Amino acid sequence: MALGKEWFTEVCEEHGSAFSLKVKQKLHEEQTEFQKIEVYDTTQFGKLMIIDGFTMVSTRDNFLYHEMMSHPVLYTHPAPNRVLIIGGGDCGTLKEVLKHPEVKLAQQVEIDERVTRLSEQYFPELCDSNNDPRAALHFVDGLKWVKDAEAGYYDVIIIDSTDPIGPAEGLFNEAFYRDCRKALGENGILVQQSESPLYHVKLIKAMRDAMGKAGFEQFRTLDFPQPLYPSGWWSATMASKQGVLDHFREEESQNKSFATLYYSSERHKVSMVEVPLLAAVLD
Amino acid sequence: MALGKEWFTEVCEEHGSAFSLKVKQKLHEEQTEFQKIEVYDTTQFGKLMIIDGFTMVSTRDNFLYHEMMSHPVLYTHPAPNRVLIIGGGDCGTLKEVLKHPEVKLAQQVEIDERVTRLSEQYFPELCDSNNDPRAALHFVDGLKWVKDAEAGYYDVIIIDSTDPIGPAEGLFNEAFYRDCRKALGENGILVQQSESPLYHVKLIKAMRDAMGKAGFEQFRTLDFPQPLYPSGWWSATMASKQGVLDHFREEESQNKSFATLYYSSERHKVSMVEVPLLAAVLD
Repeated sequence: MALGKEWFTEVCEEHGSAFSLKVKQKLHEEQTEFQKIEVYDTTQFGKLMIIDGFTMVSTRDNFLYHEMMSHPVLYTHPAPNRVLIIGGGDCGTLKEVLKHPEVKLAQQVEIDERVTRLSEQYFPELCDSNNDPRAALHFVDGLKWVKDAEAGYYDVIIIDSTDPIGPAEGLFNEAFYRDCRKALGENGILVQQSESPLYHVKLIKAMRDAMGKAGFEQFRTLDFPQPLYPSGWWSATMASKQGVLDHFREEESQNKSFATLYYSSERHKVSMVEVPLLAAVLD
Repeated sequence: MALGKEWFTEVCEEHGSAFSLKVKQKLHEEQTEFQKIEVYDTTQFGKLMIIDGFTMVSTRDNFLYHEMMSHPVLYTHPAPNRVLIIGGGDCGTLKEVLKHPEVKLAQQVEIDERVTRLSEQYFPELCDSNNDPRAALHFVDGLKWVKDAEAGYYDVIIIDSTDPIGPAEGLFNEAFYRDCRKALGENGILVQQSESPLYHVKLIKAMRDAMGKAGFEQFRTLDFPQPLYPSGWWSATMASKQGVLDHFREEESQNKSFATLYYSSERHKVSMVEVPLLAAVLD
């Protein structure tokens, strides 16, 4: 059947699939200096933000992505005091990061301030930690920010970006990873959203190769469901300067003081071992 | 954007979402005694079988469902010699079940023989164990089969059915679960596909309540990605007559003689603990 005008559809031409959400109305549309942002009110997924035609975040299912971009890396680092988020303008990752008492500073460096302003308006629940004294929001180019960073300053860098086309393209290459590595302390870990384990195995492999060339030593690609994104199955790839990815602070994860809907210490543990489909290609 | 006629779309009206696959052509369409079956050739997902408008199985992503419907329950039972599959006419679950050397008999009881004949034609890779001497294919009503079964005969019953509407409706209620329980041996385990953890929490809870009323003692709902099904996130619920769900044959799972793309002993272990989203509702 053909879907009518009351649906927003994202087509993934390369893999011959599409995902659609039924919408009540378009709440906002603007062309910023960087990209086109739309916000819809959907019938069942709450609010929906679209950037350049691609689904970014919905009220209903964002917990999966935001929990998995933050808690595994933060419970893996032995003492995550200083965290840098590149992108992440909807502030959902920042909110999860700030739930960790070990975090003393969480900087969010988003190139497009409008993403954050629209998130404050339409996804206020993701932004309610923005005034935490440990949070610092900067609206500048993340590439330049990392290049200029003091060597060894950060414990964790989270790259919460759009797909590797358009403004985010430079966030998926060796030169950038080299700058990240320099900006990370001894036990430093980088984590980056790495697309679909079913659709983008080659991209994941290329990312890991580039991270390796940049000097990172260990890698793990975690996978998790994500209805909004192509194939409904998504991933994040961790890379560490030293061999710190074999363990995590399991007891602290088990006794965490905040509730989650997807992340748990058990899921963290299984993330330590890649899904066979990926392991076969990545090893 | 609106999708043209070259797409097959399944709409989930209740949750305001839809998933589409791009098709090259329709290969087959028939109205059987029980349901309407269509088969498409897609551009990127291989063959696609549709029953009464709902996606059933694709070449590309069926491994997720079939592995998770079979290996967790089979490695949880201490000695799965006799396995009954209700539904499962595409034979993909049967194929996975037969990979276990402990299995001496695997009966597949599918009400609609045409599902299997079409699978043999369009999904031959799922049917290549159908001539295994341990396999027995019966094309009769699964409800009646279970009611008439010898008490205590089966070790594992796998309910690999369509959604709880239409021909499969009777497979989701207390009376049927009671018959299953009677047909299972002392350490017997039932596993049933149980829809989306994001969309169908109430259904999962109702299933588990009905299983409990039928006398089952322990329950576990495993979740896994499944691009083809609504929300891209799916589940299977295990129920045991006795407390056998706290452990599994981990060493045998680790040393299994066959390859998998999703299942692993690590993923099995994490399946022992429900995703927090479900745990909060089910406990």
